[in-house]
Amino acid sequence: MSGSESSLEIKPIGIVSSNFEKHSGTPIQPVCSKDQPAEILINEEYHEGLTDLDGFERIWVLGYFNRSKPFSLKVVPYRDNQQRGLFSCRAPSRPNPIGISCVKLMEVDTKNGILKVEGIDYLNGTPVLDVKPYMPEFDSFPGSKAGWFDNPDNTDKADGRFEDK
Amino acid sequence: MSGSESSLEIKPIGIVSSNFEKHSGTPIQPVCSKDQPAEILINEEYHEGLTDLDGFERIWVLGYFNRSKPFSLKVVPYRDNQQRGLFSCRAPSRPNPIGISCVKLMEVDTKNGILKVEGIDYLNGTPVLDVKPYMPEFDSFPGSKAGWFDNPDNTDKADGRFEDK
Repeated sequence: MSGSESSLEIKPIGIVSSNFEKHSGTPIQPVCSKDQPAEILINEEYHEGLTDLDGFERIWVLGYFNRSKPFSLKVVPYRDNQQRGLFSCRAPSRPNPIGISCVKLMEVDTKNGILKVEGIDYLNGTPVLDVKPYMPEFDSFPGSKAGWFDNPDNTDKADGRFEDK
Repeated sequence: MSGSESSLEIKPIGIVSSNFEKHSGTPIQPVCSKDQPAEILINEEYHEGLTDLDGFERIWVLGYFNRSKPFSLKVVPYRDNQQRGLFSCRAPSRPNPIGISCVKLMEVDTKNGILKVEGIDYLNGTPVLDVKPYMPEFDSFPGSKAGWFDNPDNTDKADGRFEDK
């Protein structure tokens, strides 16, 4: 499987400033964290790239889960009580611990490189890898069947099970 | 901005096998590529993690755009004819060229590590970084305002403008 083994290098473009200091109690997904304000602080060299984000109601924030414990290929995910294959889950501990978090974009300060958002589910200090506009035409598929998740229990707060102690 | 500058290492978990050999003519997004079959070939060490993906109608495939040219902070995106800030666009040339592509999951072969999908917009040979289940509750926001993109023209095929010659 040539080309799929060698390491690639990525570099944060910014950092998350949020109220969440540890996994326990952090919302497991943005939709469980509706009113929590947070900021995405973008490094100066990239500020110009924030132009035209005004007008988008939501953005994807790609984050690097640098405080997650090493992954297992079977996990008991939030909202379930049995082991599931890792790639059928949104658990933060993954071979490449990259999260996609769809948050509400409240304010864009291009000059200072600050995105005010609501509903982020990342810990304070999480490295940010990318910001993309949320485009319903590409991203929104309501009613799409969601396997085991279609019978969830009601837990929507993390309990630390993926945290690196 | 401590912690947001140092490089991070990622490693592909698999590779895309698709019919697209170059950017020109490749759909710019999965929704523009409805019937194109493709395969996600997952490296053997991760096969077990594919368990329980059956039953999900769609998955996110995170890919690394290894054939995109270096990024610019202003780009003329597909479906527009003026310069826009890079982070308001889904262009593949980015500081961290990571794509999120929401595709239809047609078949899961856990034993051989093959996901048959429809609608992928990645070139053949694209390194795969992660697979996540599509969960409408977390990912689907129909009617979300999409800034400049809400007045698109009708181009939905790439023309090579982001290709590394």
